[in-house]
Amino acid sequence: MMRTHEAGTLRAEHAGQSVTLTGWVARRRDHGGVIFIDLRDASGVAQVVFREGEMAERAHRLRSEFVVKIVGDVTARPEGSANPDLPTGAIEVYATELEVLNESAALPFQLDDHLEVGEEARLKHRYLDLRRSGPAKAIRARSEANRIAREVLHAEKFVEVETPTLTRSTPEGARDFLVPARLRPGSWYALPQSPQLFKQLLMVGGMERYYQIARCYRDEDFRADRQPEFTQLDIEMSFVEQDDVIALGERIISALWKGLADHELPQPFRRISYADAMSKYGSDKPDLRFDVELVELTDYFKETPFRVFQAPYVGAVVMPGGADQPRRTLDGWQEFAKQRGHRGLAYVLVAEDGTLGGPVAKNLSEAEREGLAKAVGANPGDCVFFAAGDPDGARSLLGAARVEIASRVGLIDENAWSFVWVVDFPMFESTEKLKDGDVAVGGGTWTALHHAFTSPTPEWLDNFESDPGNALAYAYDIVCNGNEIGGGSIRIHRADVQQRAFGVMGIGPEEAQEKFGFLLDAFKFGAPPHGGIAFGWDRIAMLLSGTDSIRDVIAFPKSGGGYDPLTAAPAPITPLQRKEAGVDAKPPVDKSATDK
Amino acid sequence: MMRTHEAGTLRAEHAGQSVTLTGWVARRRDHGGVIFIDLRDASGVAQVVFREGEMAERAHRLRSEFVVKIVGDVTARPEGSANPDLPTGAIEVYATELEVLNESAALPFQLDDHLEVGEEARLKHRYLDLRRSGPAKAIRARSEANRIAREVLHAEKFVEVETPTLTRSTPEGARDFLVPARLRPGSWYALPQSPQLFKQLLMVGGMERYYQIARCYRDEDFRADRQPEFTQLDIEMSFVEQDDVIALGERIISALWKGLADHELPQPFRRISYADAMSKYGSDKPDLRFDVELVELTDYFKETPFRVFQAPYVGAVVMPGGADQPRRTLDGWQEFAKQRGHRGLAYVLVAEDGTLGGPVAKNLSEAEREGLAKAVGANPGDCVFFAAGDPDGARSLLGAARVEIASRVGLIDENAWSFVWVVDFPMFESTEKLKDGDVAVGGGTWTALHHAFTSPTPEWLDNFESDPGNALAYAYDIVCNGNEIGGGSIRIHRADVQQRAFGVMGIGPEEAQEKFGFLLDAFKFGAPPHGGIAFGWDRIAMLLSGTDSIRDVIAFPKSGGGYDPLTAAPAPITPLQRKEAGVDAKPPVDKSATDK
Repeated sequence: MMRTHEAGTLRAEHAGQSVTLTGWVARRRDHGGVIFIDLRDASGVAQVVFREGEMAERAHRLRSEFVVKIVGDVTARPEGSANPDLPTGAIEVYATELEVLNESAALPFQLDDHLEVGEEARLKHRYLDLRRSGPAKAIRARSEANRIAREVLHAEKFVEVETPTLTRSTPEGARDFLVPARLRPGSWYALPQSPQLFKQLLMVGGMERYYQIARCYRDEDFRADRQPEFTQLDIEMSFVEQDDVIALGERIISALWKGLADHELPQPFRRISYADAMSKYGSDKPDLRFDVELVELTDYFKETPFRVFQAPYVGAVVMPGGADQPRRTLDGWQEFAKQRGHRGLAYVLVAEDGTLGGPVAKNLSEAEREGLAKAVGANPGDCVFFAAGDPDGARSLLGAARVEIASRVGLIDENAWSFVWVVDFPMFESTEKLKDGDVAVGGGTWTALHHAFTSPTPEWLDNFESDPGNALAYAYDIVCNGNEIGGGSIRIHRADVQQRAFGVMGIGPEEAQEKFGFLLDAFKFGAPPHGGIAFGWDRIAMLLSGTDSIRDVIAFPKSGGGYDPLTAAPAPITPLQRKEAGVDAKPPVDKSATDK
Repeated sequence: MMRTHEAGTLRAEHAGQSVTLTGWVARRRDHGGVIFIDLRDASGVAQVVFREGEMAERAHRLRSEFVVKIVGDVTARPEGSANPDLPTGAIEVYATELEVLNESAALPFQLDDHLEVGEEARLKHRYLDLRRSGPAKAIRARSEANRIAREVLHAEKFVEVETPTLTRSTPEGARDFLVPARLRPGSWYALPQSPQLFKQLLMVGGMERYYQIARCYRDEDFRADRQPEFTQLDIEMSFVEQDDVIALGERIISALWKGLADHELPQPFRRISYADAMSKYGSDKPDLRFDVELVELTDYFKETPFRVFQAPYVGAVVMPGGADQPRRTLDGWQEFAKQRGHRGLAYVLVAEDGTLGGPVAKNLSEAEREGLAKAVGANPGDCVFFAAGDPDGARSLLGAARVEIASRVGLIDENAWSFVWVVDFPMFESTEKLKDGDVAVGGGTWTALHHAFTSPTPEWLDNFESDPGNALAYAYDIVCNGNEIGGGSIRIHRADVQQRAFGVMGIGPEEAQEKFGFLLDAFKFGAPPHGGIAFGWDRIAMLLSGTDSIRDVIAFPKSGGGYDPLTAAPAPITPLQRKEAGVDAKPPVDKSATDK
């Protein structure tokens, strides 16, 4: 090693020692003839002093971010000049030798903790951004998260297995990235959206306990905070029931929060059914750091004269103290609703004397006005927001309003950690409800809500086809502070059940065999009952780092549209590359692809 | 959990307990009315007994690889019927309940340890192959190798960082796999050949100690035992010298061999210069489990009348006891040479009386014949093989003969582990020597022997351009039993040196800026001295598992030509996929690719 010590580790007890340090010039200060520099390495910062005369002379050429090697004597700082905020603040190092290992041009931005430069510039020079303490800490915390999770898993005899990333295109709910296969011109690999099929095959292979911190790929229209490649902690187990996977998930999450957030999580975590989550919180990833709940008023308004409330569902959410919002703010709420694809957000203001204000109130019957505050649990001074229409849409709007209310009223304890499992998900959803960019598995009117390999719950095993809209799946999501951070399910392990599930999704036996034949084949040879979970590792690292973007916990993230400002990828390829890769080759006759 | 115990963990002390087991029917034997099955799960095998009567009746339908759940009573086996070869051999389980969790069709091949079925069939049904004890053990050992290596690295404060796999095409010695970028039509990502540039950028970013078990991609013409995607344990460190990286490498390797091969490796490992390795062993990855060395005879034959030996290099290797090889075997050696692109392998047979036989002997002068045995260290009864010509080619042939000799004569101790570092590599090699499928970085007559970012040794730092053929690099390979299992180097960390190295490779400043601009830019802002190593993780896992193909330690390997017999990837894509992926879009105007 070029150094004897790391700068950030020097303490009072090192006084009197000669040390060799290496690192970056974080700051230079000239005091008369004496020059002080803050020498930074990965361990921290130490103050180096260049005495008047020759040493100071030589230190004059040092600029910010020069890389230096310094030999010097550790000395206790003089009485009164110790810096208790700095771990090395009790000492300074009097330089006796200086070697410049590398110079630095003037930086495109300063490496301050509070950086005002745009993200694009930071990502273009990510190698500078990572020298700042915040980003460096986030990357290190993520490494530690890996270590902690693996420790839990290894203690429970999980086997880490790498699954292929050059594989076959299989519809899993998003578009695949494709890779031309030069050696089989006209054929393409796909990058996996997850190791789902392979981990199930490992269970068929008797591996029993699998995990992998796996890179996954989805070619989505980039929504905020999505990356074309992302990472999940991927887990699968055999001979388990839902409770076993959930309990393992809690052990992992608890170890992570204990190790990185110094926070003890009481186990078991809370659970809520999907139906309850939707009706109480208008979301399948409810933020339970605050208590506000939706109130269903469909019955209450069943004879209402107000046309808008003559709907299959009417619900409300109360904003404590919201009655005094100025008109402009109330108009803002209408905008809030419109941005989410709704016409507006009806409201009633409860005056201090209990009378109701706002444009909706006068449309209600007297009896409705009379009992409303009580029915929704509003107090004088509150505002009540309403949504009416189809239950899913209206609840989702109220759910969004609920979170916004909590944020505006200050109901969210930013130091709180609230975990909840959402369970009893529907097995299928109507393909009409798919969002832009989602790809239905199969061409039916129903598609899998989780994914196509999710088992029905035992009571639906024999009859999910007869009522796909109500059939429940053995699926579970783990939600932290309103973020979905993981999800999984007990899988179908019988070929006949999988075939029937495909049937509901409009995938006939022939198409199923073509697309998933290898999985259906595997199920013929003694597939064990199995289930698993995948944690969104980027998002978990983000929460543990206290940042609000997954880009902060990815060493080299893409910016919008999948563009990397650092390497300028993606980029055009040369005609030779195109030709060699076989991009334009005719696909092989089908036979040759399956005949090997 | 569906079970209370794992089958393979049952011991005599469990006798008297009622247990619930799950697993596969490995074998069924009917003895009169009683049925025995071997129940297998990941932990091992236990014998389950179905007593005459109802239980045996129900067990009759069990077939190989049915998945079952059994409740039963653990009982000590009767006197004399214990099986000491089986960990559970002291007990058997008398079944009281049986549930068939899944059935199995007849298997395409039997799950025996000595499987005669072809590899293609095994890979097509890899989920069955993995139920066999050998493959299962290999995958588990690999997981354990990951754990051991990470433990060493975490103890030394290495940070695990994931680097991007959708990145920019950068020539690193092989072809890139390409991925069309749908959101920037006409632009393509490349899959990385290694995290090389990113790990160097992490060093520029002050990370100081990085590692990653990284997936890498090379689109090569598939040579034996290569996979299009492979894994390396990738490491980079700042402020280090060659000895630091080598010492860390030895700590990792020693921990692996201790943990998985129960073998203590004395440290430090042996080192040999590239020049010595080539002249003594004719290989830069010498197998040092045996002593045979090449002998240079260029001087000895400097006045030879034999035209073939009037060459820039003449060398020999001795085959102990080889004089009595029949003519057909000696002809076989000519074939051996021809397959390696040489004309033949000249030989001399040393008779028991010391006289020389074989067709070459009579062409030599009397003096040459006289002194030959002594010059090459041959004894009566030995065979001496010769190669003459350009030193590289001739040595390489003798090196191959050396290994073949050792194998035929039985000089290799199959239980030995021989590790050696090869150091002092040339910095450049002539592009004329590139093998088929290798891609030169740059268009010059010289290309990097290791890779383009390798630092010259200090004595060549200022003048490597003046004598590129002799300049030495700070590069090192680690070789185990003749397998290169890792390699690395101290990197160039100064933009001017990197630019000069590119210059030798025929990469001008403009091309360098276009291809590696982001790295050269990074070097302007205080890049620290750094170096690292990458271990071929598949090959290390292979050695530790005692198998002879990396396919045995990959859960789902590709077969020849990058084809996956299991999923039938790669496969043709649909016209819609092609259109959506933007495969045929015109590349964007250059400006837009760099203008963001």
